[in-house]
Amino acid sequence: MSSSSPNTGREVHLASRPVGEPVAGDFALVEVEVPAPGPGQVLVRNRWMSVDPYMRGRMRDVPSYVPPYAVGDVLTGGAVGEVVASRADGLAEGDLVLHGGGWREWWVGDADRATRLDVPAGVSPSAFLGVLGMTGLTAYAGLVEVAALRPGDAVFVAGASGAVGSVAGQLARLKGASRVVGSAGSPEKVRWLVDELGLDAAFDHHDGPALEQLRRVAPDGVDVCFDNVGGAQLEAALRVLRPHGRVALCGAISTYNDESGGDPVHGLGLAVGKRLTLRGFIVGDHEHLRPRFLEEVGGWLADGALRVRETVHEGIERAPEAFIGLFTGAGGGGKVLVRL
Amino acid sequence: MSSSSPNTGREVHLASRPVGEPVAGDFALVEVEVPAPGPGQVLVRNRWMSVDPYMRGRMRDVPSYVPPYAVGDVLTGGAVGEVVASRADGLAEGDLVLHGGGWREWWVGDADRATRLDVPAGVSPSAFLGVLGMTGLTAYAGLVEVAALRPGDAVFVAGASGAVGSVAGQLARLKGASRVVGSAGSPEKVRWLVDELGLDAAFDHHDGPALEQLRRVAPDGVDVCFDNVGGAQLEAALRVLRPHGRVALCGAISTYNDESGGDPVHGLGLAVGKRLTLRGFIVGDHEHLRPRFLEEVGGWLADGALRVRETVHEGIERAPEAFIGLFTGAGGGGKVLVRL
Repeated sequence: MSSSSPNTGREVHLASRPVGEPVAGDFALVEVEVPAPGPGQVLVRNRWMSVDPYMRGRMRDVPSYVPPYAVGDVLTGGAVGEVVASRADGLAEGDLVLHGGGWREWWVGDADRATRLDVPAGVSPSAFLGVLGMTGLTAYAGLVEVAALRPGDAVFVAGASGAVGSVAGQLARLKGASRVVGSAGSPEKVRWLVDELGLDAAFDHHDGPALEQLRRVAPDGVDVCFDNVGGAQLEAALRVLRPHGRVALCGAISTYNDESGGDPVHGLGLAVGKRLTLRGFIVGDHEHLRPRFLEEVGGWLADGALRVRETVHEGIERAPEAFIGLFTGAGGGGKVLVRL
Repeated sequence: MSSSSPNTGREVHLASRPVGEPVAGDFALVEVEVPAPGPGQVLVRNRWMSVDPYMRGRMRDVPSYVPPYAVGDVLTGGAVGEVVASRADGLAEGDLVLHGGGWREWWVGDADRATRLDVPAGVSPSAFLGVLGMTGLTAYAGLVEVAALRPGDAVFVAGASGAVGSVAGQLARLKGASRVVGSAGSPEKVRWLVDELGLDAAFDHHDGPALEQLRRVAPDGVDVCFDNVGGAQLEAALRVLRPHGRVALCGAISTYNDESGGDPVHGLGLAVGKRLTLRGFIVGDHEHLRPRFLEEVGGWLADGALRVRETVHEGIERAPEAFIGLFTGAGGGGKVLVRL
């Protein structure tokens, strides 16, 4: 099979809907024929694909903001690849594109569903699946718009070593937060947050009750909580938030394998007297921020103010394992990607 | 003791901080000397005083948006009375005033801490402690500003027969909600909500799980929840709220006798995908709405569009009982007042 004229390619199908934590048997690697692109279409050789926690929700057969994946069908998700054949104006062979046809080696689709990428010098194309893509925009929108971050605010990022959290913590600092603290799942990640990403303090959530840990690193309270975790860490945040504090509810990875909407949260009654705002959001509602986001975050990435860690798995056959690792904390932190 | 020259009067002191539900022994009725008003002060014969759930929080010795009551000292709260002596410009004998020196028969204080009332024909002065006072403004601010009610929204008022809830439900209807449903604590209150206040449907929270009940009365979901209850009713609301739904967290009477910040709330994770906003508020932050509120709500009260129920206890010695009844559901619904 040559890069320019494939006959077949491999893709990952949803073999069965996971019950609780996803396992390898929920996925199937399938060899399929790759069609030739039709009029207005392109054939893309995928180079990178993203695995994201939100995909767990799509594996469930319930109505949500995105339709569920179908059992027996190929999965989808963000991918970056190279156009190897084009029957569309505006995209030519050799162009790098971002599109939603991940979980497969080759993608054939309408050119208007792919975005041509201008990759700045020194930046990996994979950044468009992470810090310069949906992941980074999620962090940006959550801080800037949902939590209405103001210079001088103290910020707690729950789940600060993950793909979104590691950008959110750094953005809070770069946007003038007075203090940024975070939580992670290992001593190594805690060191990374403080030593490399520049957070003021961080804690390992295995080290004791979240409230004790958070009070230790944020003794004067916080104004903003960027929550990727839910459960006990969100409860701790409700306790330490100052009056008029804001919580951006970005996701609750502790709950994605749980049908009930997550662990119960104690202390929500505190939101009344403290006039707290808790707001759930999904990045798709904040697309209008993208130009500002690319300019600001692209600048910080180019000048080194913003650091990125990627955990890279090699080969489509490793994609299920990469995805499963999101929930076990097995990864090294930062953005999890599969290189194809 | 004549109305115009008292020597002594009775007032209610906090004898001890309640543990759990307040009991009679937490209060003491004390006879005290009534001082003559100093320069700039007025002497007021209180006619009505308010008992409110928020006062339970002030009986606890914790920092909050209002300072705690002191053990052994007189309680405070909203009252309406008649000026019987004035050493201040702008207030004269015979004026009716609203002020914060409740829980006592006579109040002596600075005139600038009292508001002269123009009581419209057909309206009881007690309305300024209820529908035209803090209670009504709370309902108005919660709907209009905190929950950003829009015409066509479907609304659920949790605790719809209480002082604030009974105004909130009617205001939602008058402001163009497509459907208004509520919960209450007895079949009689449920009938009152539907037959007299004009709610589309209501349920008795004793009749079964809140989620089942709420799904029955709001089968198509709701856009706004005005929450006075917390706990299971708030959980039910999280389930039935539509995308972009808003929750005004006004208080959680189910939690006020509980030190932990209330019952745990399940399902907060649903707020992410549904992009829900939950916002705690206190009325004092929304004082700027008062002119609009008085015009709109005063008009609806005058023309009969808005109905009011008062549960009136007679005599200062009944004030503790009136307050305790707020938490036991013993009252008849609507605003609870003490006539002095």
